[in-house]
Amino acid sequence: MTTIVTNPKITWGPRVDLRDLPNLYAPQTVDPYTPPPPGIDNLGISSTDTFMIPGKGEFKVDFQGYVRVARSQPSTDQWLDSEVYTNLIEMCMRGEAPEIGQIVVTLNPDILSTGMLRTPWADMNCEQPEKACRMAVAALFTLPQLGMTLFNKEPIELTIDHVQAIPPAGNPGEGRIYQVLPLFDLANPDSKPAAYLTGLKFAMGNYVTEAQLQSIASE
Amino acid sequence: MTTIVTNPKITWGPRVDLRDLPNLYAPQTVDPYTPPPPGIDNLGISSTDTFMIPGKGEFKVDFQGYVRVARSQPSTDQWLDSEVYTNLIEMCMRGEAPEIGQIVVTLNPDILSTGMLRTPWADMNCEQPEKACRMAVAALFTLPQLGMTLFNKEPIELTIDHVQAIPPAGNPGEGRIYQVLPLFDLANPDSKPAAYLTGLKFAMGNYVTEAQLQSIASE
Repeated sequence: MTTIVTNPKITWGPRVDLRDLPNLYAPQTVDPYTPPPPGIDNLGISSTDTFMIPGKGEFKVDFQGYVRVARSQPSTDQWLDSEVYTNLIEMCMRGEAPEIGQIVVTLNPDILSTGMLRTPWADMNCEQPEKACRMAVAALFTLPQLGMTLFNKEPIELTIDHVQAIPPAGNPGEGRIYQVLPLFDLANPDSKPAAYLTGLKFAMGNYVTEAQLQSIASE
Repeated sequence: MTTIVTNPKITWGPRVDLRDLPNLYAPQTVDPYTPPPPGIDNLGISSTDTFMIPGKGEFKVDFQGYVRVARSQPSTDQWLDSEVYTNLIEMCMRGEAPEIGQIVVTLNPDILSTGMLRTPWADMNCEQPEKACRMAVAALFTLPQLGMTLFNKEPIELTIDHVQAIPPAGNPGEGRIYQVLPLFDLANPDSKPAAYLTGLKFAMGNYVTEAQLQSIASE
Protein backbone atom coordinates (compact mmCIF):
# COMPACT_ATOMS: atom_id res chain seq x y z
CA MET A 1 0.00 0.00 0.00
CA THR A 2 2.60 2.58 1.05
CA THR A 3 6.05 3.30 -0.31
CA ILE A 4 9.13 3.78 1.82
CA VAL A 5 10.72 7.08 0.81
CA THR A 6 14.46 6.62 0.69
CA ASN A 7 16.26 8.64 -1.93
CA PRO A 8 14.20 11.34 -3.67
CA LYS A 9 15.97 14.16 -5.52
CA ILE A 10 14.04 16.98 -3.84
CA THR A 11 14.65 17.40 -0.11
CA TRP A 12 13.13 19.98 2.21
CA GLY A 13 15.94 19.65 4.77
CA PRO A 14 18.88 17.47 5.84
CA ARG A 15 18.89 13.77 4.99
CA VAL A 16 19.21 11.26 7.83
CA ASP A 17 21.57 8.36 7.13
CA LEU A 18 19.32 5.31 7.36
CA ARG A 19 22.15 2.74 7.49
CA ASP A 20 22.38 0.84 10.77
CA LEU A 21 19.33 2.59 12.26
CA PRO A 22 17.38 0.15 14.46
CA ASN A 23 13.64 -0.18 13.81
CA LEU A 24 11.89 0.72 17.06
CA TYR A 25 8.48 -0.87 17.70
CA ALA A 26 6.33 -1.10 20.86
CA PRO A 27 7.14 -1.50 23.66
CA GLN A 28 9.90 1.09 24.18
CA THR A 29 11.07 3.02 27.22
CA VAL A 30 11.71 6.70 26.47
CA ASP A 31 13.69 8.77 28.98
CA PRO A 32 12.45 12.36 29.24
CA TYR A 33 14.88 15.26 28.71
CA THR A 34 17.47 12.86 27.27
CA PRO A 35 18.99 12.91 23.77
CA PRO A 36 18.14 9.41 22.50
CA PRO A 37 20.31 7.09 20.39
CA PRO A 38 19.30 7.28 16.71
CA GLY A 39 16.64 4.99 15.31
CA ILE A 40 13.47 4.65 13.28
CA ASP A 41 10.39 5.37 15.40
CA ASN A 42 7.24 3.48 14.38
CA LEU A 43 4.49 5.56 15.92
CA GLY A 44 0.73 5.88 15.83
CA ILE A 45 -0.72 9.21 14.69
CA SER A 46 -4.13 10.82 14.54
CA SER A 47 -5.00 13.98 12.62
CA THR A 48 -8.03 16.10 11.81
CA ASP A 49 -7.62 17.82 8.45
CA THR A 50 -9.96 20.27 6.80
CA PHE A 51 -10.15 20.36 3.00
CA MET A 52 -11.85 22.83 0.69
CA ILE A 53 -12.65 21.35 -2.70
CA PRO A 54 -14.00 24.01 -5.09
CA GLY A 55 -17.46 22.98 -6.26
CA LYS A 56 -17.79 20.34 -3.55
CA GLY A 57 -17.40 22.32 -0.32
CA GLU A 58 -15.42 22.01 2.90
CA PHE A 59 -14.74 18.65 4.59
CA LYS A 60 -13.34 17.99 8.06
CA VAL A 61 -11.86 14.50 8.18
CA ASP A 62 -10.50 12.46 11.12
CA PHE A 63 -7.49 10.29 10.26
CA GLN A 64 -5.82 7.43 12.11
CA GLY A 65 -2.65 5.64 11.13
CA TYR A 66 1.09 5.42 11.60
CA VAL A 67 4.31 7.22 10.72
CA ARG A 68 7.87 5.93 10.51
CA VAL A 69 10.35 8.62 11.49
CA ALA A 70 14.12 8.23 11.07
CA ARG A 71 16.03 10.16 13.74
CA SER A 72 19.67 11.27 13.51
CA GLN A 73 22.37 10.95 16.14
CA PRO A 74 21.79 13.96 18.45
CA SER A 75 24.31 16.75 17.75
CA THR A 76 25.46 16.77 21.41
CA ASP A 77 24.85 14.55 24.44
CA GLN A 78 23.20 17.33 26.49
CA TRP A 79 19.46 17.85 26.23
CA LEU A 80 19.88 21.63 26.39
CA ASP A 81 21.70 22.21 23.10
CA SER A 82 21.33 18.95 21.20
CA GLU A 83 19.64 19.04 17.80
CA VAL A 84 18.02 16.01 16.23
CA TYR A 85 17.18 15.79 12.51
CA THR A 86 14.31 13.67 11.28
CA ASN A 87 13.10 12.20 7.98
CA LEU A 88 9.58 10.90 7.56
CA ILE A 89 10.19 7.68 5.62
CA GLU A 90 6.69 6.17 5.62
CA MET A 91 3.17 7.26 6.53
CA CYS A 92 -0.28 5.72 6.22
CA MET A 93 -3.37 7.43 7.60
CA ARG A 94 -6.96 6.61 6.74
CA GLY A 95 -10.05 8.76 7.08
CA GLU A 96 -13.49 9.15 5.54
CA ALA A 97 -15.99 11.88 4.73
CA PRO A 98 -19.57 10.89 3.80
CA GLU A 99 -19.63 13.13 0.71
CA ILE A 100 -16.24 12.21 -0.78
CA GLY A 101 -15.59 8.73 0.63
CA GLN A 102 -12.32 7.32 1.93
CA ILE A 103 -9.10 9.35 1.98
CA VAL A 104 -5.72 7.65 2.39
CA VAL A 105 -2.71 9.81 3.22
CA THR A 106 0.75 8.54 2.29
CA LEU A 107 4.11 10.19 1.51
CA ASN A 108 4.99 11.72 -1.84
CA PRO A 109 7.91 9.54 -2.98
CA ASP A 110 9.39 12.39 -5.07
CA ILE A 111 10.19 14.64 -2.10
CA LEU A 112 11.98 13.90 1.18
CA SER A 113 9.88 15.09 4.13
CA THR A 114 12.31 16.43 6.73
CA GLY A 115 12.29 17.93 10.18
CA MET A 116 14.22 18.80 13.30
CA LEU A 117 13.96 19.07 17.06
CA ARG A 118 15.78 21.89 18.83
CA THR A 119 15.61 24.13 21.86
CA PRO A 120 14.04 27.52 21.06
CA TRP A 121 16.65 30.32 21.21
CA ALA A 122 14.69 32.04 23.99
CA ASP A 123 15.03 28.94 26.21
CA MET A 124 18.75 28.32 25.82
CA ASN A 125 19.36 29.61 29.36
CA CYS A 126 16.75 27.30 30.93
CA GLU A 127 18.06 24.39 32.93
CA GLN A 128 15.65 21.87 31.41
CA PRO A 129 13.92 23.47 28.40
CA GLU A 130 11.15 21.97 26.32
CA LYS A 131 12.15 21.47 22.72
CA ALA A 132 10.32 22.49 19.55
CA CYS A 133 9.74 20.04 16.72
CA ARG A 134 9.02 20.99 13.11
CA MET A 135 8.59 18.87 10.01
CA ALA A 136 7.98 19.72 6.35
CA VAL A 137 5.73 17.05 4.87
CA ALA A 138 5.07 16.12 1.23
CA ALA A 139 1.90 14.01 1.16
CA LEU A 140 -0.38 12.22 -1.26
CA PHE A 141 -4.10 12.30 -0.47
CA THR A 142 -5.73 9.44 -2.38
CA LEU A 143 -9.51 9.70 -2.83
CA PRO A 144 -10.63 6.44 -4.51
CA GLN A 145 -14.31 7.46 -4.70
CA LEU A 146 -13.41 10.63 -6.62
CA GLY A 147 -10.71 8.80 -8.63
CA MET A 148 -8.25 11.50 -7.65
CA THR A 149 -4.94 11.84 -5.82
CA LEU A 150 -4.03 15.26 -4.43
CA PHE A 151 -0.52 16.42 -3.50
CA ASN A 152 1.11 19.52 -2.05
CA LYS A 153 3.94 21.44 -3.77
CA GLU A 154 4.64 23.65 -0.74
CA PRO A 155 5.39 21.67 2.44
CA ILE A 156 2.72 20.99 5.03
CA GLU A 157 4.54 22.38 8.06
CA LEU A 158 3.78 20.32 11.17
CA THR A 159 4.94 21.65 14.53
CA ILE A 160 4.98 20.28 18.05
CA ASP A 161 5.91 22.52 20.97
CA HIS A 162 6.59 21.59 24.61
CA VAL A 163 8.58 18.48 23.68
CA GLN A 164 9.88 16.83 26.86
CA ALA A 165 10.97 13.55 25.29
CA ILE A 166 12.11 12.28 21.89
CA PRO A 167 10.00 10.96 20.22
CA PRO A 168 7.22 13.32 21.46
CA ALA A 169 4.65 10.51 21.79
CA GLY A 170 1.32 11.81 23.03
CA ASN A 171 2.06 15.47 22.17
CA PRO A 172 -0.51 17.50 20.23
CA GLY A 173 0.68 19.34 17.15
CA GLU A 174 -0.53 21.72 14.52
CA GLY A 175 -0.24 22.26 10.78
CA ARG A 176 0.93 25.84 10.28
CA ILE A 177 -1.44 26.72 7.47
CA TYR A 178 -2.17 30.38 6.84
CA GLN A 179 -5.70 30.32 5.37
CA VAL A 180 -5.03 27.90 2.50
CA LEU A 181 -2.38 25.45 1.33
CA PRO A 182 -2.93 24.57 -2.35
CA LEU A 183 -3.28 20.90 -3.31
CA PHE A 184 -2.83 19.71 -6.89
CA ASP A 185 -4.28 16.82 -8.90
CA LEU A 186 -1.56 14.23 -9.55
CA ALA A 187 -3.17 13.47 -12.94
CA ASN A 188 -2.92 17.13 -13.94
CA PRO A 189 -0.01 18.44 -11.85
CA ASP A 190 0.68 21.65 -13.78
CA SER A 191 -2.88 22.93 -13.60
CA LYS A 192 -4.35 25.27 -10.98
CA PRO A 193 -5.02 23.93 -7.44
CA ALA A 194 -7.69 21.20 -7.36
CA ALA A 195 -8.29 21.61 -3.62
CA TYR A 196 -6.93 23.36 -0.53
CA LEU A 197 -5.91 22.20 2.90
CA THR A 198 -7.41 24.81 5.25
CA GLY A 199 -6.63 23.38 8.69
CA LEU A 200 -4.75 20.54 10.39
CA LYS A 201 -4.44 19.45 14.00
CA PHE A 202 -2.71 16.22 14.93
CA ALA A 203 -1.42 14.18 17.85
CA MET A 204 1.60 11.91 17.89
CA GLY A 205 0.75 8.47 19.20
CA ASN A 206 2.85 5.89 21.00
CA TYR A 207 5.07 3.19 19.55
CA VAL A 208 3.13 0.56 17.61
CA THR A 209 4.06 -3.08 17.10
CA GLU A 210 5.16 -4.34 13.71
CA ALA A 211 1.91 -6.32 13.49
CA GLN A 212 -0.20 -3.20 14.19
CA LEU A 213 1.71 -1.28 11.51
CA GLN A 214 1.28 -4.07 8.93
CA SER A 215 -2.40 -4.28 9.72
CA ILE A 216 -2.95 -0.54 9.07
CA ALA A 217 -0.83 -0.66 5.90
CA SER A 218 -2.72 -3.61 4.40
CA GLU A 219 -6.27 -2.57 5.34
CA MET B 1 23.56 41.11 -10.78
CA THR B 2 20.26 39.24 -10.70
CA THR B 3 19.01 36.35 -12.79
CA ILE B 4 15.60 36.21 -14.39
CA VAL B 5 13.99 32.94 -13.33
CA THR B 6 12.21 31.46 -16.31
CA ASN B 7 12.18 27.68 -16.46
CA PRO B 8 13.36 25.87 -13.31
CA LYS B 9 12.44 22.20 -12.79
CA ILE B 10 11.07 22.65 -9.29
CA THR B 11 7.91 24.74 -9.02
CA TRP B 12 5.97 25.61 -5.87
CA GLY B 13 2.76 26.32 -7.81
CA PRO B 14 1.35 26.99 -11.29
CA ARG B 15 3.57 28.48 -13.98
CA VAL B 16 2.51 31.73 -15.63
CA ASP B 17 2.99 31.82 -19.41
CA LEU B 18 5.43 34.68 -19.92
CA ARG B 19 4.92 34.95 -23.69
CA ASP B 20 3.33 38.23 -24.81
CA LEU B 21 3.17 39.64 -21.26
CA PRO B 22 3.76 43.43 -21.34
CA ASN B 23 6.42 44.80 -19.01
CA LEU B 24 4.69 47.35 -16.77
CA TYR B 25 6.81 50.19 -15.39
CA ALA B 26 5.87 53.47 -13.68
CA PRO B 27 3.61 55.30 -14.21
CA GLN B 28 0.59 52.97 -14.31
CA THR B 29 -3.06 53.48 -13.46
CA VAL B 30 -4.52 50.62 -11.42
CA ASP B 31 -8.31 50.32 -11.10
CA PRO B 32 -9.41 49.03 -7.68
CA TYR B 33 -11.65 45.96 -7.44
CA THR B 34 -10.98 45.16 -11.11
CA PRO B 35 -9.35 42.01 -12.53
CA PRO B 36 -6.44 43.46 -14.52
CA PRO B 37 -5.13 42.34 -17.91
CA PRO B 38 -2.04 40.11 -17.48
CA GLY B 39 1.44 41.60 -17.35
CA ILE B 40 4.76 41.79 -15.58
CA ASP B 41 4.63 44.24 -12.66
CA ASN B 42 7.91 45.99 -11.86
CA LEU B 43 7.42 47.13 -8.29
CA GLY B 44 9.41 48.54 -5.41
CA ILE B 45 9.54 46.51 -2.21
CA SER B 46 10.80 47.01 1.32
CA SER B 47 11.24 44.30 3.93
CA THR B 48 12.52 43.88 7.47
CA ASP B 49 13.92 40.39 7.99
CA THR B 50 15.28 38.89 11.18
CA PHE B 51 18.04 36.27 10.94
CA MET B 52 19.51 34.03 13.61
CA ILE B 53 23.01 32.86 12.76
CA PRO B 54 24.28 30.30 15.31
CA GLY B 55 27.48 31.59 16.91
CA LYS B 56 26.87 35.12 15.60
CA GLY B 57 23.50 36.09 17.05
CA GLU B 58 20.28 37.62 15.80
CA PHE B 59 20.19 40.39 13.17
CA LYS B 60 17.27 42.56 12.10
CA VAL B 61 17.91 43.94 8.64
CA ASP B 62 15.99 46.54 6.59
CA PHE B 63 15.91 45.82 2.86
CA GLN B 64 14.96 47.97 -0.12
CA GLY B 65 14.69 46.89 -3.71
CA TYR B 66 12.40 45.68 -6.47
CA VAL B 67 10.47 42.64 -7.60
CA ARG B 68 9.22 41.62 -11.03
CA VAL B 69 5.97 39.70 -10.80
CA ALA B 70 4.37 37.95 -13.78
CA ARG B 71 0.58 37.88 -13.47
CA SER B 72 -1.76 35.48 -15.31
CA GLN B 73 -4.95 36.30 -17.15
CA PRO B 74 -7.61 36.47 -14.38
CA SER B 75 -9.74 33.29 -14.32
CA THR B 76 -12.97 35.33 -14.71
CA ASP B 77 -13.77 38.96 -15.48
CA GLN B 78 -15.55 39.56 -12.15
CA TRP B 79 -13.55 40.75 -9.16
CA LEU B 80 -15.59 38.54 -6.80
CA ASP B 81 -14.51 35.12 -8.05
CA SER B 82 -11.50 35.79 -10.29
CA GLU B 83 -8.23 34.12 -9.41
CA VAL B 84 -4.88 35.44 -10.55
CA TYR B 85 -1.68 33.34 -10.53
CA THR B 86 1.71 34.96 -10.09
CA ASN B 87 5.36 34.02 -10.63
CA LEU B 88 8.17 36.01 -9.11
CA ILE B 89 10.63 36.19 -12.00
CA GLU B 90 13.22 38.59 -10.58
CA MET B 91 14.04 40.19 -7.23
CA CYS B 92 16.82 42.37 -5.89
CA MET B 93 16.80 43.74 -2.36
CA ARG B 94 19.75 45.21 -0.48
CA GLY B 95 20.25 45.61 3.24
CA GLU B 96 23.05 45.83 5.75
CA ALA B 97 23.79 44.85 9.34
CA PRO B 98 26.86 46.34 11.08
CA GLU B 99 28.09 42.94 12.33
CA ILE B 100 27.68 40.92 9.12
CA GLY B 101 27.87 43.57 6.41
CA GLN B 102 25.78 43.83 3.25
CA ILE B 103 23.07 41.30 2.40
CA VAL B 104 21.68 41.02 -1.14
CA VAL B 105 18.47 39.06 -1.66
CA THR B 106 17.78 37.59 -5.09
CA LEU B 107 15.77 34.63 -6.40
CA ASN B 108 16.97 31.04 -6.33
CA PRO B 109 17.14 30.16 -10.06
CA ASP B 110 16.53 26.45 -9.33
CA ILE B 111 12.98 26.89 -8.01
CA LEU B 112 10.02 28.80 -9.42
CA SER B 113 8.55 31.14 -6.77
CA THR B 114 4.80 31.11 -7.28
CA GLY B 115 1.71 32.69 -5.82
CA MET B 116 -1.94 33.52 -6.24
CA LEU B 117 -4.59 36.11 -5.45
CA ARG B 118 -8.09 34.95 -4.56
CA THR B 119 -11.14 35.88 -2.55
CA PRO B 120 -11.20 34.12 0.85
CA TRP B 121 -13.98 31.49 0.98
CA ALA B 122 -15.62 33.32 3.87
CA ASP B 123 -16.01 36.46 1.73
CA MET B 124 -17.52 34.90 -1.39
CA ASN B 125 -20.91 36.37 -0.51
CA CYS B 126 -19.58 39.91 -0.10
CA GLU B 127 -20.45 42.37 -2.82
CA GLN B 128 -16.93 43.79 -3.07
CA PRO B 129 -14.55 41.57 -1.08
CA GLU B 130 -10.88 42.20 -0.38
CA LYS B 131 -8.66 39.52 -1.86
CA ALA B 132 -5.88 37.55 -0.20
CA CYS B 133 -2.46 37.22 -1.82
CA ARG B 134 0.06 34.47 -1.06
CA MET B 135 3.44 33.69 -2.57
CA ALA B 136 5.98 30.93 -1.94
CA VAL B 137 9.46 32.39 -2.39
CA ALA B 138 12.81 30.67 -2.99
CA ALA B 139 15.53 33.20 -2.21
CA LEU B 140 19.29 33.54 -2.13
CA PHE B 141 20.74 35.70 0.65
CA THR B 142 24.25 36.70 -0.41
CA LEU B 143 26.54 37.92 2.39
CA PRO B 144 29.77 39.07 0.71
CA GLN B 145 31.50 39.99 4.00
CA LEU B 146 30.96 36.47 5.36
CA GLY B 147 31.70 34.89 1.95
CA MET B 148 28.44 32.98 2.21
CA THR B 149 25.18 32.58 0.31
CA LEU B 150 22.19 31.24 2.22
CA PHE B 151 19.09 29.68 0.65
CA ASN B 152 15.79 28.22 1.82
CA LYS B 153 14.60 24.69 0.97
CA GLU B 154 11.09 25.25 2.35
CA PRO B 155 9.32 28.25 0.81
CA ILE B 156 9.25 31.62 2.50
CA GLU B 157 5.48 32.15 2.51
CA LEU B 158 4.62 35.81 1.97
CA THR B 159 1.02 36.89 2.46
CA ILE B 160 -0.90 40.11 1.88
CA ASP B 161 -4.46 40.47 3.10
CA HIS B 162 -7.00 43.24 2.37
CA VAL B 163 -6.06 43.44 -1.30
CA GLN B 164 -8.28 46.02 -3.02
CA ALA B 165 -6.32 46.28 -6.25
CA ILE B 166 -3.97 44.13 -8.33
CA PRO B 167 -1.05 44.62 -7.93
CA PRO B 168 -1.44 45.41 -4.20
CA ALA B 169 1.00 48.35 -4.29
CA GLY B 170 1.37 49.95 -0.88
CA ASN B 171 -0.05 46.98 1.05
CA PRO B 172 1.83 45.63 4.06
CA GLY B 173 2.53 41.91 4.16
CA GLU B 174 4.00 39.28 6.37
CA GLY B 175 6.24 36.24 6.12
CA ARG B 176 4.35 33.35 7.73
CA ILE B 177 7.27 31.95 9.71
CA TYR B 178 6.47 29.78 12.71
CA GLN B 179 9.48 30.36 15.01
CA VAL B 180 12.23 29.42 12.53
CA LEU B 181 12.68 28.80 8.81
CA PRO B 182 15.98 26.96 8.17
CA LEU B 183 18.48 28.51 5.75
CA PHE B 184 21.29 26.48 4.20
CA ASP B 185 24.79 27.34 2.97
CA LEU B 186 24.91 27.14 -0.83
CA ALA B 187 28.53 25.92 -0.58
CA ASN B 188 27.48 23.05 1.68
CA PRO B 189 23.83 22.50 0.77
CA ASP B 190 23.39 19.03 2.31
CA SER B 191 24.64 20.01 5.74
CA LYS B 192 22.56 21.20 8.70
CA PRO B 193 21.02 24.70 8.63
CA ALA B 194 23.65 27.49 8.62
CA ALA B 195 21.13 30.13 9.78
CA TYR B 196 17.44 30.70 10.36
CA LEU B 197 14.96 33.29 9.21
CA THR B 198 12.97 34.13 12.36
CA GLY B 199 10.73 36.99 11.19
CA LEU B 200 9.76 38.94 8.08
CA LYS B 201 7.52 41.93 7.49
CA PHE B 202 7.34 43.61 4.13
CA ALA B 203 5.50 46.25 2.13
CA MET B 204 4.81 46.21 -1.60
CA GLY B 205 5.86 49.43 -3.25
CA ASN B 206 4.57 51.18 -6.33
CA TYR B 207 5.58 50.71 -9.94
CA VAL B 208 9.19 51.70 -10.63
CA THR B 209 10.65 52.99 -13.87
CA GLU B 210 13.00 50.83 -15.92
CA ALA B 211 15.83 53.25 -15.03
CA GLN B 212 15.11 52.89 -11.28
CA LEU B 213 15.09 49.11 -11.60
CA GLN B 214 18.40 49.07 -13.52
CA SER B 215 19.95 51.38 -10.98
CA ILE B 216 19.06 49.07 -8.05
CA ALA B 217 20.19 45.98 -10.00
CA SER B 218 23.59 47.44 -10.87
CA GLU B 219 24.41 49.08 -7.52
